[in-house]
Amino acid sequence: MVYDLIVLGGGPAGYLGAARAGREGLQTLLVEKKYIGGVCLNEGCIPSKTLLYSAKIYDSIRLAEKYGVSARDFSFNHQVVLERKNKVVKTLTAGVRSQLQKNNVAIIEGFGEIAPNNAANYQIKVANDFFQTKRVLIATGSAPIFPEIPGLSDGIAKGHILTNREIFDLQTVPPSLIIIGGGAVGLEMASYFNSAGSNVTVIEMLDHIAGNTDREISAILLKNYQKRGVDFKLNSRIIEFGQDSVVYETDGQKNRISGDKILLSIGRRPVIDGIGLEKIGIRLEQGRIVVDQNCRTNLPGIYAAGDVNGLSMLAHSAYREAEVCINNIMGGNDIMRYDAIPSIIYTNPEVASVGETEESARQKGLDFETAKISMRFSGRYLAENEGGDGICKIIVDKQSRRLIGTHLIGNNSSEVIYGAGMMIENEMKVNEIKKIVFPHPTVAEIIREAIFEL
Amino acid sequence: MVYDLIVLGGGPAGYLGAARAGREGLQTLLVEKKYIGGVCLNEGCIPSKTLLYSAKIYDSIRLAEKYGVSARDFSFNHQVVLERKNKVVKTLTAGVRSQLQKNNVAIIEGFGEIAPNNAANYQIKVANDFFQTKRVLIATGSAPIFPEIPGLSDGIAKGHILTNREIFDLQTVPPSLIIIGGGAVGLEMASYFNSAGSNVTVIEMLDHIAGNTDREISAILLKNYQKRGVDFKLNSRIIEFGQDSVVYETDGQKNRISGDKILLSIGRRPVIDGIGLEKIGIRLEQGRIVVDQNCRTNLPGIYAAGDVNGLSMLAHSAYREAEVCINNIMGGNDIMRYDAIPSIIYTNPEVASVGETEESARQKGLDFETAKISMRFSGRYLAENEGGDGICKIIVDKQSRRLIGTHLIGNNSSEVIYGAGMMIENEMKVNEIKKIVFPHPTVAEIIREAIFEL
Repeated sequence: MVYDLIVLGGGPAGYLGAARAGREGLQTLLVEKKYIGGVCLNEGCIPSKTLLYSAKIYDSIRLAEKYGVSARDFSFNHQVVLERKNKVVKTLTAGVRSQLQKNNVAIIEGFGEIAPNNAANYQIKVANDFFQTKRVLIATGSAPIFPEIPGLSDGIAKGHILTNREIFDLQTVPPSLIIIGGGAVGLEMASYFNSAGSNVTVIEMLDHIAGNTDREISAILLKNYQKRGVDFKLNSRIIEFGQDSVVYETDGQKNRISGDKILLSIGRRPVIDGIGLEKIGIRLEQGRIVVDQNCRTNLPGIYAAGDVNGLSMLAHSAYREAEVCINNIMGGNDIMRYDAIPSIIYTNPEVASVGETEESARQKGLDFETAKISMRFSGRYLAENEGGDGICKIIVDKQSRRLIGTHLIGNNSSEVIYGAGMMIENEMKVNEIKKIVFPHPTVAEIIREAIFEL
Repeated sequence: MVYDLIVLGGGPAGYLGAARAGREGLQTLLVEKKYIGGVCLNEGCIPSKTLLYSAKIYDSIRLAEKYGVSARDFSFNHQVVLERKNKVVKTLTAGVRSQLQKNNVAIIEGFGEIAPNNAANYQIKVANDFFQTKRVLIATGSAPIFPEIPGLSDGIAKGHILTNREIFDLQTVPPSLIIIGGGAVGLEMASYFNSAGSNVTVIEMLDHIAGNTDREISAILLKNYQKRGVDFKLNSRIIEFGQDSVVYETDGQKNRISGDKILLSIGRRPVIDGIGLEKIGIRLEQGRIVVDQNCRTNLPGIYAAGDVNGLSMLAHSAYREAEVCINNIMGGNDIMRYDAIPSIIYTNPEVASVGETEESARQKGLDFETAKISMRFSGRYLAENEGGDGICKIIVDKQSRRLIGTHLIGNNSSEVIYGAGMMIENEMKVNEIKKIVFPHPTVAEIIREAIFEL
């Protein structure tokens, strides 16, 4: 038997691609080495959001007095939170499995390797079995980056240093936690463990946290977390990992801090090893699979979606890329666009962005206008965020008057940002957005308020 | 001096219209009889949302155990909640005042009456003062409907029966509360007082709650509230108000229930009395001012926006209508559309809708398709709503494949719905919505999931 499509990897790109392919009537096989749902569902987005929601409840109890609710005797039970996380993950994994089944996708456990092209088909080797297929979707995802720093391997072996994989199974809250890397993952974990009672220090190489986030917003987030007792070491480089400490350098000055656990969250790299990519001649670049705007690799019938192509490395980009692949396989001409990919940091307060930042727009030499407004102009934000210092910033192209960027800090920005992405994707202009009716009172209205500043 | 515009009423339509007019350089006078911000800010949307957020925190403490947070000694302090509500209202009112000032709008306290047309101008009488103006924006809003039921006037006079005005100043939580009318306002207050500890009974004339909300969703909401101990008397008509009781009739059967307080929330009617409308010959219909799609009345230079035109009776519709007025005054041809006006019920769980329901689509004889999906398909919803029974339902026009309705129950639908409204307003088709990248994991993604069911 020759499959229409074999998918390597069962994460967001893989399982979604496989399900869509099956739905379209393609004979589809999904090969997954560890667990359906991938990093996102098992060791990433979903576990973190489950943990963070418990932390949010705990935070709101701590601050409840401000809202007329007093609580005196309350406590956080990390173990129960973990159990619940496992239950949520199990439910969602079962959901994904049933989606795959419903769409007639065959699943095989193992590590798939693409063998050299054999006539018009490819051959996938999984352990000692061989499968023939007309097309391959590579969706092998990504893995944590391990820099060459003395003591790292040893720390990982001994369980003192953790990645996103181990942190979600940590049975007790460490009295102190050092987080290497102040990007989204590092900050979300700082948020959770700070709420859970850890003494948290974040060490970041850059002079700001939250990566490419709007600088003003990352500064507000920093201030919020400093106020809550998280310690930040910016402009700092790790020199060495000790038994239960880290040596880092700031402005040429060496310092040592100790911590019960260390979380390494400095970034991820595409998983391209052992899949046979070199043997069949897949084009790689800086450790990622090169794809065109149709998500095609240089080889006919071979597609790559998700983290492995290194273009966006977000679960929702992976979803869309997988769909682009299947649409193109089915004869369409679907194109992946990256202008309006939202990104969210689920800290408390939440940060949500889409499109150009002032920094990226300046870098590209765009002629743009900015409007910035306090979230407190939203009645709902004011009602629900005592003392909140959130902002909304929008970026508009000066010539076309099109919205090209939206940046929010404040709860619940996470649920608001997709609409701003849609405005960008639909190339909406200031005057068109002004005519949109935003329900009152919502946090979403802040976008409208900002638009009317222009 | 002749004003360019005099605005009657300082609620959402009035204050926003005045501010926009001032910004455009029009000499503008705002006449408000009681308080800037109107019902929405002082006795409606904002007070209720402030109260409901405190209730939400209290609810989440009660249910915190499920999320790994235990709280033993906690209590709800209605008085503190009220004080905070007053503070929030004061902050927002100050904000509106400063917006008006910034835009050079003059404000006068009093009740404005339009005098007969005098040459090209109108004359507005406020107490003993007269003001000349080229144009008038009538934004006098609405007031509670008082049906002719024995005992009502007496109950109101004695403070036993309350409207939205008095309920927000109730100093103590009544041990029992009877709510007449199971629409948005009644349900939100049922939600709050149930959380705050009242024994709540809702009496509703129809066989379902939540007015025109999707029937399936209103049934889910009902079940949620019954589970929390709210008692509902559906198909029930009030016969008489007693000293601290209500006599109602269900299926020809008379019943009496007693309650410490009674909230009357059966609807609102436009405020058209005493403004001089009949004298100048403004066209009225069923107690509302008739306007065209430009929000113009039958008289040149006289516009009506907000509840007083009776078309939508929501603060956000009022905002947009006011803008339509000003844009037309400034020489544009702006049209008010009502196809995509979102509506939200801020109960716990929240309900949010926009566009056609199955019921309204059927009534209009539209050829449509429906997709319904459990909210539990959203990873974030699952992570944050233990045991949640929310759903998402979308309605699509069969011929054009355009989205024409979206209906959600579950937190935080309120922040999600504006995007669905935008899809409807932008006439987006199923295949276009499929290409939108929704950030993962969010509750908003449920729309995407539902779309892919089609």
